[in-house]
Amino acid sequence: MQKTAILGIGQTAIGEHWDKSLREITGEAAFAAMQDAGVDRVDALFVGNMLSPLIDGQNQLGTFIADWAGLWQKEAVKVEAACGSGAAAFRAGLMAVASGEVESALVVGVEKMTDKAGHDVTAALATAADADYEVEQGVSFVGLNALVMQRYMHEYGWKHADFAPFSINAHANAMHNPFARLHEKITVEKFEKSAMVATPINLLDASPIGDGAAAAIIVSADKVASLNGRPRVVVAASASATDTIAVHSRKDPLFLQAAYESAKHCYEMAGVESKDIDVFELHDAFSIMSALSLEACGFAERGQGPRLGLENCITLKGPVPICTRGGLKARGHPVGATGMYQIVEVVQQLRGECGETQVDGAKIGMAQNIGGSGASILTHILKAE
Amino acid sequence: MQKTAILGIGQTAIGEHWDKSLREITGEAAFAAMQDAGVDRVDALFVGNMLSPLIDGQNQLGTFIADWAGLWQKEAVKVEAACGSGAAAFRAGLMAVASGEVESALVVGVEKMTDKAGHDVTAALATAADADYEVEQGVSFVGLNALVMQRYMHEYGWKHADFAPFSINAHANAMHNPFARLHEKITVEKFEKSAMVATPINLLDASPIGDGAAAAIIVSADKVASLNGRPRVVVAASASATDTIAVHSRKDPLFLQAAYESAKHCYEMAGVESKDIDVFELHDAFSIMSALSLEACGFAERGQGPRLGLENCITLKGPVPICTRGGLKARGHPVGATGMYQIVEVVQQLRGECGETQVDGAKIGMAQNIGGSGASILTHILKAE
Repeated sequence: MQKTAILGIGQTAIGEHWDKSLREITGEAAFAAMQDAGVDRVDALFVGNMLSPLIDGQNQLGTFIADWAGLWQKEAVKVEAACGSGAAAFRAGLMAVASGEVESALVVGVEKMTDKAGHDVTAALATAADADYEVEQGVSFVGLNALVMQRYMHEYGWKHADFAPFSINAHANAMHNPFARLHEKITVEKFEKSAMVATPINLLDASPIGDGAAAAIIVSADKVASLNGRPRVVVAASASATDTIAVHSRKDPLFLQAAYESAKHCYEMAGVESKDIDVFELHDAFSIMSALSLEACGFAERGQGPRLGLENCITLKGPVPICTRGGLKARGHPVGATGMYQIVEVVQQLRGECGETQVDGAKIGMAQNIGGSGASILTHILKAE
Repeated sequence: MQKTAILGIGQTAIGEHWDKSLREITGEAAFAAMQDAGVDRVDALFVGNMLSPLIDGQNQLGTFIADWAGLWQKEAVKVEAACGSGAAAFRAGLMAVASGEVESALVVGVEKMTDKAGHDVTAALATAADADYEVEQGVSFVGLNALVMQRYMHEYGWKHADFAPFSINAHANAMHNPFARLHEKITVEKFEKSAMVATPINLLDASPIGDGAAAAIIVSADKVASLNGRPRVVVAASASATDTIAVHSRKDPLFLQAAYESAKHCYEMAGVESKDIDVFELHDAFSIMSALSLEACGFAERGQGPRLGLENCITLKGPVPICTRGGLKARGHPVGATGMYQIVEVVQQLRGECGETQVDGAKIGMAQNIGGSGASILTHILKAE
């Protein structure tokens, strides 16, 4: 694949933006990326979104946003892979540039989830699971993840508090991210006393929904130079893999096969190993997913993910810094936007723009975005040059 | 862009498939395409679909279908551009192959629309329009097209019966297509007496919804040879363009600017002119759209589209054969699948497999798929070699 680079990034704060429309929050991120890139036009727009038909009554979000952004007559399309929609749109944009069909692609992930009452959003999120084989039985999306976590704790002998470091690390890092939804330090005690959602997942195991949009502009790498000390951020690898959509159909529901496949493909493509990754923005929708991602991507042995948290390996100074800007847990999880927040945050790290949460000398960053309970997984490796 | 070719095609009959699930109808088309191509595996799956979150309660349709088709661990994603979703997925598949990221892409367009009562489908289809500026005012999707047709008749002096040939031609051709939803010859008298839907659009101006899926497999052109007299069908051009999503925001609501832009781009890319097109599968969701597409793509002067019907130019023996397998009007319009039905039908024509509706000596075919009221438009030119 032709080498591509990221020319600009933009994002909105994640929150309850009842005063702004779907158009407006997406535009904020898109215009910020264009300003950061120093361009006033792009050739094509790729929008990652999961819920706008259900929550906003709006389809063809590609054209909808192109219209708002003044990209009339330009190519525009929406890409959807449940909570993996953001990275799926990013990969579609990459392939458009790499194929030579377009010179520049603006990719925006967006979700507006808080304008409706909680009941609707829970039902909408359940469309990420298998409608025929899972949802029909009455299980919610968090319920599916709870079953996985319960089994994992049983199988490997972990107790609930062993997952606390994932949440504590994410909350600590979000304190310094002005775009994060939650700015609140937490402790093990608070983690253990938090309200139960679906046993054993409590409120502090789960990421909060939110309204937000994040964007990046992709161009051919030969069009970008490192300027004034700001490094050029290139896309060193991109991969997408899937698994059965229903969790019960998997050979092993405790292993993220699609994370393993897509990460392996990326390591080969980028010529790196897991130990070379300086920053890993993983998909911590629930604390159990942090453990499973770390294991599938080669950072921990099977069943040993929580150990990385307990041994302080995942903090900014550790060997595997994760959720450096707050992760899904504390930055927030506007589902179709999340994959693009991860890309934007890795770029911030590689540019050295993270202030208090900067990982020293970060040169290689990985982002992994998950749709469904491990069903659609996209991995990207970015490098600073 | 690297030259690509179509290795296999498949489709299901369009109808009310209450006895088959969303998985099953998609699988039928996908497996038929794989059998036609003589392959038992592909590298990636691109699904075009608009309504499954709303009608089937199912998101991440890429992974959902990959799972059913046994494509575990393979890349899979859904692409959505309202009724243009099928061709949008086709273009995404093209770019994936052309970028070198995958060697083969299976593209399936699918929609299952008849399992719910009519009211829900009308509301679901309205998500193709602008939720804030159009739907909020109470207008339905057919209502928007009715306003355009009313204005067109007023502006250019046509009467309703002048649009009859579009519908008559489509119905006549569908008689010979076993996959078509409607097998019923119609006359001008019947056309004029048909029940009104939204003045001036009556039942025979409008395409019927339905359940259906259509698929194609894309590979690099150098991997395909013309075999045993069956020509190689290559993708000579692909383009996507957009317009404002709300009809009232356009400079001229009676001109499909995005059809013009995408067709112009395709003509240049393929090195042809409109007169070189042997078959044109256009997006006749409503009879007015046939007229507007013919004008925007250079087959008729502004305001003169209906003349092509009245002068018998659009029939199988005419200079611009359209809707040769029944078009949206009589083959049926399972919205997210339609763009792929058009591609499949053009391939059938270029291979000379259309029997009674074969266009003699068809070598160059064009398909144009429209999302919304002209908002997302994708054009493809295929050639037999």
